Amino acid sequence: MKFNILKTTLVALLVMGSVYSSQAQEISAMQAPRVVSPEVAPNNSVSFRVYSPNANEVTVNGSWMGFRETLPLKKEENGVWSVTIDPLPSSMYHYNFFIDGVSAIDPTNPHALRDGTRYASLLMIEGDGSEVFELNPVPHGNISKVWYQSPSLDSYRRMYVYTPPGYDSGNDKYPVLYLLHGAGGDEDAWSALGRANYILDNLIAEGKAKPMLIVMTNGNAWQTSTLQNKPGVETMTRENRAQFQGKFEQSLVEDVVPYIEKNYRVIATKEGRALAGLSMGGGHTITASTQYPGTFNYIGVFSSGIFDANADMAELENKFLALKASGVSKYWVGCGVDDFVMESNKRLLSILDKTGFEHEYYESAGGHTWANWRDYLSIFAPMLFK
Amino acid sequence: MKFNILKTTLVALLVMGSVYSSQAQEISAMQAPRVVSPEVAPNNSVSFRVYSPNANEVTVNGSWMGFRETLPLKKEENGVWSVTIDPLPSSMYHYNFFIDGVSAIDPTNPHALRDGTRYASLLMIEGDGSEVFELNPVPHGNISKVWYQSPSLDSYRRMYVYTPPGYDSGNDKYPVLYLLHGAGGDEDAWSALGRANYILDNLIAEGKAKPMLIVMTNGNAWQTSTLQNKPGVETMTRENRAQFQGKFEQSLVEDVVPYIEKNYRVIATKEGRALAGLSMGGGHTITASTQYPGTFNYIGVFSSGIFDANADMAELENKFLALKASGVSKYWVGCGVDDFVMESNKRLLSILDKTGFEHEYYESAGGHTWANWRDYLSIFAPMLFK
Repeated sequence: MKFNILKTTLVALLVMGSVYSSQAQEISAMQAPRVVSPEVAPNNSVSFRVYSPNANEVTVNGSWMGFRETLPLKKEENGVWSVTIDPLPSSMYHYNFFIDGVSAIDPTNPHALRDGTRYASLLMIEGDGSEVFELNPVPHGNISKVWYQSPSLDSYRRMYVYTPPGYDSGNDKYPVLYLLHGAGGDEDAWSALGRANYILDNLIAEGKAKPMLIVMTNGNAWQTSTLQNKPGVETMTRENRAQFQGKFEQSLVEDVVPYIEKNYRVIATKEGRALAGLSMGGGHTITASTQYPGTFNYIGVFSSGIFDANADMAELENKFLALKASGVSKYWVGCGVDDFVMESNKRLLSILDKTGFEHEYYESAGGHTWANWRDYLSIFAPMLFK
Repeated sequence: MKFNILKTTLVALLVMGSVYSSQAQEISAMQAPRVVSPEVAPNNSVSFRVYSPNANEVTVNGSWMGFRETLPLKKEENGVWSVTIDPLPSSMYHYNFFIDGVSAIDPTNPHALRDGTRYASLLMIEGDGSEVFELNPVPHGNISKVWYQSPSLDSYRRMYVYTPPGYDSGNDKYPVLYLLHGAGGDEDAWSALGRANYILDNLIAEGKAKPMLIVMTNGNAWQTSTLQNKPGVETMTRENRAQFQGKFEQSLVEDVVPYIEKNYRVIATKEGRALAGLSMGGGHTITASTQYPGTFNYIGVFSSGIFDANADMAELENKFLALKASGVSKYWVGCGVDDFVMESNKRLLSILDKTGFEHEYYESAGGHTWANWRDYLSIFAPMLFK
């Protein structure tokens, strides 16, 4: 019996409720130097460390760094590689190690993030810039993973639904924000990377936002959920994806909205509905709101790159005129000055200008980043349902 | 602007709804050989592959292998390391690569599992042995991440609640299984590793189990949730944990059960309550059921190592006699023949025998594994509420 030697100790640990694990790494880790990573110093400089006496090269790439950029760690005599970076502004970041070129999450960091088909380690630098999306001691809403039938897509799909604090124990009806992710993401993105639930918890606790539901769908019309990804299998080629053009938007308005309004205590009129999305989800937002005028009263388009140089601007203007005529209380557009979709974003703004569509434009620093999208949600949500 | 070269392509991809990512790895991965990992052959042999022209040593450890055991991958000329293992029985497994000794999830596998503070890549070998916990085309229940006040622990805590298919749209009252994890786990364990939601989806669809709620708490009384883990910080020393002895069990019965019975449509009597747990959670099950006789009508103890050689057997017998007198419809015990807690498990059985406590004992192959606990749940759940 392979556990013989350890048996007495392990039973004792179990009785005491201490941590037991059957993983091989546990024991070998006991023999290695104790490594703490990431370690955030009081001045917000960060040290990254990983133990490997045997590696040729260890580097790190973090979301605060440039595209393609990596930073080398230096090996100490005890086999621990480390690097300390300059203080970071308080925010939420993620990073990966590269052990001889192989992407790895930090083995000593208990928090990792899913981003579509990949994982990265979480780095939270707490402070002014992160308070709005931290897990603070305020009442928390709940997140449910909800399966629903989508006749439009002929599939059984999954979405996440945030219900605000007090929803379960009360009888009030709430408004709903439908919040859409970008390409590469899925129904998990707005809570895992976007921290939408904590942002609303915090805004609601401060009285800045109205209590509302947030519905976070899977915008990849060819998927039922992120669970459907298979290793090494392209679930959908680019060509086949084209056949789904507009289908997600249809399923959102014709399947998701009725499901939510049947199964939750919500305000089932235009006045109780907001729609926002980032990048590809910004495109979905534009399409769904113009195809179904009169459905959403509040619209937010974050960093959207939907309009290329060949877009039929005259047709788009007609659609926006119809949407304007249906009555929209707020049309909000956000984009970063360094975002590669800026050109396309400007086409959206020019349509809004030409059609005399009242809107608000927020141009932030930075580019196509979750730091911006968390920021945009924090600005947009307080404008809703008031 | 760092995206300049890629801008046109990326905007086009966004418009088409294709996968875009700002991660550095994306581009370098395009230049590397295309790697598929894991790849399951028709005979269920499995190939693992990872690209690293630069590594000195790459190994893999999987949950089908022995403790501490690792298997070397072999480097090919194109820099891809690979190994193919013999066919595996259909089941759910997890594995990690070690790149020059550093634990890494498989960078090309889109599915990873959290196990407390660690991550591993998921390997699903579909077939007879896995059908009961696979995501099958049957109606799915929903899982909610629910925050609740725990006066017993003076903390605001998180649990997962599974509601069966039909719960949201119906008016029926349902019974509840309270399902507890082991040491090292948390509120995430029974869904992520235990697949409790899919097991119930499948058993309910086949008419084998009654529709029921499953409440999955965090059994670490010193934590509010797994979100509280900090890198490099021992949230609780073994000594300090002792002060929480019995506290989780109190919070379960005095805080969690009333919360569920107030906020969900459930049968709020002993007849509608079952309690089961694995390892440390088996200990919690024994303690909670004996401290609060008359609360639970169905009790399941999976691979529990609570009773050491110094246990006061006379006192325990009295407690079990009181529990027996309160009326328990089913007492079910499961353990693997190779489990290191077998000795302790036998003490539980001897108490049940001595007190004439009617019970069912299931001795499986294998040891202290999730394969067994998924199996035990699949056997236990159909016995409940009938």
